[in-house]
Formats: sequence, C-alpha cells, structure tokens
Amino acid sequence: MSKPYVIGMDMGGTNTVFGIVDARGHVIASDSIKTMKHAKFEDYVADLYDSVMHLLRANDAEDKIQGIGIGAPNANYYTGEIVNAANLPWGDLVPLAEEISKAFDGIPVGVTNDANAAALGEMTYGVARGMKDFIMITLGTGVGSGIVVNGQVVYGHDGNAGELGHLIVKRTNGRVCGCGRTGCLETYCSATGVARTAREFLEIRTEPSTLRNLQIEDITSKDVYDAAIAGDKLAKDIFDYTGKILGEAMADMVTFSSPQAFVLFGGLTKSGDLLMKPLKEAFEKSLMPVFKGKVKILVSELKESDAAVLGASALGWEAKYNYQNNSKPSDIPSMSEN
Amino acid sequence: MSKPYVIGMDMGGTNTVFGIVDARGHVIASDSIKTMKHAKFEDYVADLYDSVMHLLRANDAEDKIQGIGIGAPNANYYTGEIVNAANLPWGDLVPLAEEISKAFDGIPVGVTNDANAAALGEMTYGVARGMKDFIMITLGTGVGSGIVVNGQVVYGHDGNAGELGHLIVKRTNGRVCGCGRTGCLETYCSATGVARTAREFLEIRTEPSTLRNLQIEDITSKDVYDAAIAGDKLAKDIFDYTGKILGEAMADMVTFSSPQAFVLFGGLTKSGDLLMKPLKEAFEKSLMPVFKGKVKILVSELKESDAAVLGASALGWEAKYNYQNNSKPSDIPSMSEN
Repeated sequence: MSKPYVIGMDMGGTNTVFGIVDARGHVIASDSIKTMKHAKFEDYVADLYDSVMHLLRANDAEDKIQGIGIGAPNANYYTGEIVNAANLPWGDLVPLAEEISKAFDGIPVGVTNDANAAALGEMTYGVARGMKDFIMITLGTGVGSGIVVNGQVVYGHDGNAGELGHLIVKRTNGRVCGCGRTGCLETYCSATGVARTAREFLEIRTEPSTLRNLQIEDITSKDVYDAAIAGDKLAKDIFDYTGKILGEAMADMVTFSSPQAFVLFGGLTKSGDLLMKPLKEAFEKSLMPVFKGKVKILVSELKESDAAVLGASALGWEAKYNYQNNSKPSDIPSMSEN
Repeated sequence: MSKPYVIGMDMGGTNTVFGIVDARGHVIASDSIKTMKHAKFEDYVADLYDSVMHLLRANDAEDKIQGIGIGAPNANYYTGEIVNAANLPWGDLVPLAEEISKAFDGIPVGVTNDANAAALGEMTYGVARGMKDFIMITLGTGVGSGIVVNGQVVYGHDGNAGELGHLIVKRTNGRVCGCGRTGCLETYCSATGVARTAREFLEIRTEPSTLRNLQIEDITSKDVYDAAIAGDKLAKDIFDYTGKILGEAMADMVTFSSPQAFVLFGGLTKSGDLLMKPLKEAFEKSLMPVFKGKVKILVSELKESDAAVLGASALGWEAKYNYQNNSKPSDIPSMSEN
C-alpha cells in the first residue's frame, strides 16, 4: 500500500528547500538548509538528512514517505546525477539520487532539473492541470524549459531535452552565453538579459532616462521594471524588446509540439503587461496560421516558495530507483548504446 | 486474432500508391491510382476501393486485412481529416478516415501527415528501428518533419505538431513562404529552396557558372546538383549555403527533444556529401556543448517507392477508428475543450 506523503526538494545554489507533501499537493510542512556552506557533498547530504528527519518527526511522518523527488540544476532524470552544475561546488559529477537514497535508507528517489520539476508541478497542481501538451518556460537568472508531450515530460535520448533557453535567436553578433555560444534566447529574455539590454540601450541611445541615474554596471531587471512603471520610455522599450524576442521564439517552439499552452514562471513574469503585452503580440503575429488563436499563454499561479517543492514532489510519487536495486534511476536499459 | 496484413496508402498530389504489407514490413504487392483525375472525393474513394480490392483478390488477401494506414498531406491524426491541403482538389476539409472506413466496410483506419508516416516507417522498418527519440526530416518540394519522443510520434494538442519546415531561420528579409510568413526553413532547404538560392546567387554574383547557360526561371535543384558534381564553384556554394542553414536549424531542434538521431529523407538527400558535409559541419559547430558528438545524422535507406507506403502501413496495425464506432480517430476525448 502506498504511503500518504512524499518529500519534495528544491536544490538551488543558495538554499535547498524541502517539504512534506500530500497527494492533493498540500505542503504539510517545509524547511530549508544552506546549500553552499558544505564544501563536501557528504556533509551536505548529512545535514539535509538531519533536517528532513527533524521535520518528519515534528509532523509524525517518519514512516509515511512514499518517495523523494528532487529538482536540481543540471540534474539528469535518467542517470540521477548532477552534471557540470556551474552554481554547485561539488565537482563535475554528483551521484545525487544514489547518495540521497542511501542516506534515507533506500526510499525511492527521482531527480530532474529545476525547469522539468516546475513543469511537473504545474501539470500536477497548477494551471496546467489536465493538459497533456504544454511548455513550461522559467524566466529567472537564465531561461529554462520543461516540455510536456502527451502527458509526459520530454527527457530526450540522454535526459537533456528541454534546453529552449538556448535556442539561437540571433545568428550574427549575438550576445555571449554561459553555454559557450552566442545569440541564445536566455542572453536576451532572462532577468540578466533584461539588464544587458538596459546597458546596451543606454550606451547606444541618447535620450534621457531615469536609468541614467544608476551605475550602469549595477542595473538590474528590477530597476528597469521600476523605471518603466514610473513611465520611463527607454525602460518600457527594454520590455518591448524582451517581449518581442521571447514571443517570436515561443512561436517557433509551437511548430515543434503544438502545445495547448505555455506556462511562464519566475521573477520576470512579475513585470505583468510590461512584458506580456509585447510578448503576446509578437507571439500571435509570428505563429504559423494553422496555430493562430489556439495556444494560450498562462502565468503560473503557484506560490513561488511552494512551486519548486511541489514540482519536485510530483517525481516522488513515481520514483522507483533506490541505491539497493542496483539500477539507474530510469528504466532505459543503457545509455552506452549510443 | 489479428490478421496478417495491413494496407499502407501514400496519398500524394499526383499519385496515390498503396500496398499490402506484412508484419515484417514486406510490401507483398502494390499498385497506384491517379489522385488528381477525380474532381469529386467520392469518385476518388470509389476508384481507390476498386483498385485496392483488385490487388487484394489477386493476392488472396481479401479477408486478411487488419487495418488501413494512410499518409496524406495535412492529414490530422486526431480528427482523421485533411485540412486545407493546397495540392488536393476536394475543398478545405476532407473526412478521409471516415470515408475510407465506410468504403472498406468498417476496416479500422488510421491517418497522419506524410512526414509523420515516414517517421513511423523509419521507426518500424528503417534506420530508426529501436530508437525512442529521433527526428525525421523530409527534404522534398517542401521540408516536412515527424518527431518521435519516447517511442511515440508527437502529434501535439491538435494534431499539428512537427512543422519544423516552418521554423523561422531568417527574421529579417526572409523569403516568402507558402504558409503566409517569411523566413521559414523550407524556403531555403527544400528542393525549391535550392532553386531559389540558385536564382538569387546568379543575380547577386558576377562570376561565371555553367548555370548561366540555363533559363534562370527554369533552374531546378537537379540542375544545381549536376553543375556542382561537374565542379561548378557557384553551384557548390549553393549547397554549402543550404547545408549550413539546415545544420544550424537542426542544432536548434536538438535543444527541444535531445534526439538520438535525425533521419533525412527525400530528393535532396541524393546530393550526398555536397549537402551532408556542410550540413554536418554547421550542425556540430552550432550544437550546445552538452549535445556535441551525441546526435547522429542518418539518411533513410528505405526504397523511396516503398518508404511512404511502409510508413503509412505502420499506422494500420494500431488503427482502431472505424466509421461505425462513432468516435474520432483518436482516443482524445474532445478537441473542443480548447
């Protein structure tokens, strides 16, 4: 018989937030630890174990956990590993699922990257409930994506599918991206992309703007938002520029999987119509005629603090891997066949 | 007990080719009728029925048909209809699955568009056997695509997924596309796209080329191929240009579904290294680092005459729809929920 709770964990560069979640998507209780204070992964796992067990005991839930789901940067659904995560200090390859399952005495563990976890959260508990085909776009420091096709997250052959933040939107003279290439969507349409656009516009253009009162290198997307809300024309133009690029890219994404909706999530969505209006206009205008008027653009309604934990927890229900059954986290026979 | 054969039909603007196919993918017998000579869809169906029955009787197979699979331009897997097919004379909406099932006395019918049928053919009988994640690209008069994720063709919310020929590869001053927009991949990387490039290059550039001996408006991709094989520099540049655009676009597609391979099919693939060399170079160079060296680019090995029929036939095995069970061809409850 299955147990009534799962644990959802959202592992970020700064904090790891975890919660006890029931089958209806209520976060019964949650807590967090600092991710970065542990130079060794073993110490991190030990701290996490202690803190989770403390939370479980406080809620009389020690024997009621069906599985653990974890969303983490660059975490691979198939291998259970974190590969080359720039913001984590534990080396190029971290056996996340294996070590967590060991620490928790064999409880099944499922892992995926943070954007896929967000997509699972929206499908299970959010605005994408009941949808079989949608695309989650997370607009944070970078641009992440989780793609759902026919009710399943698209992991791809090697677990790395859904890197839509790295679609090339500018083939010549594009901005340098952390991935080593130039012109990626996320260099334009993330929070940092908005700040880069601000610096570019302030250098190229000569008109007055309240943004000129700030140190140009310190300008954030929040500064641009505040200026735009106060009526600053140049700041508004920055959002128009951002929305147009994102809308055009999303229209391209539709040719791939013909989704029922996009779900947007993350800090930039708080810009509201400043971003959404130019985005929706460019999107609808750029769509292939067969898709026009058919694809919704929604904004996540999950509480930001809960969303990541809820999304990760959705993986906990289906998790089968544990360190004892000697398998990889996925049922894919082998990655080496490639 | 299931029956030993299916019928695969490849419905093109000019010919409709059909064959009796066994479970191992052998085309037992095949024949064709002219598609366009019938101004009325009823007459076309009647002719098709007579010709198929003739073939079945000649092969003692009248009672051995499990289902019928049809690949047709703009055919929708969910609704069983052909919608707005520019090259067919029967109006905006043709109830293909329903009418064929009626004519054949209730045999289950499955339909999909031609590129999806080709993907099914490769997965079932071709170079993609055993692959769960690949992308089929058909390079013909246009550019079509069929996307397979986790062993299933991606149909999307409304059955229109997989229109990768309409990814925008040029946002400004792009070529006018039949879809009503500008800059679509297929305006550059189809057979007609190659001919358009030839005309552009001949106008813009001044160097000698054997292509200048031809009427500029009549130049075909075959002429460009012949000139390139004979050593013509400008003709080779046309293939370099085509391959580079296609390779860059395919690298973008990888960020979506992280496929194990691409399978290329259609007339342009006969250009061999003229196209494939610049294509593969641009592809590998443009890939996000995490995908580099992991994605194969394969060319279909199915006999062109059989491939489309085989692909369509694969749908025949799983077809459940017939006109009597009063359902839509898919098990999706309703399209109107959108």
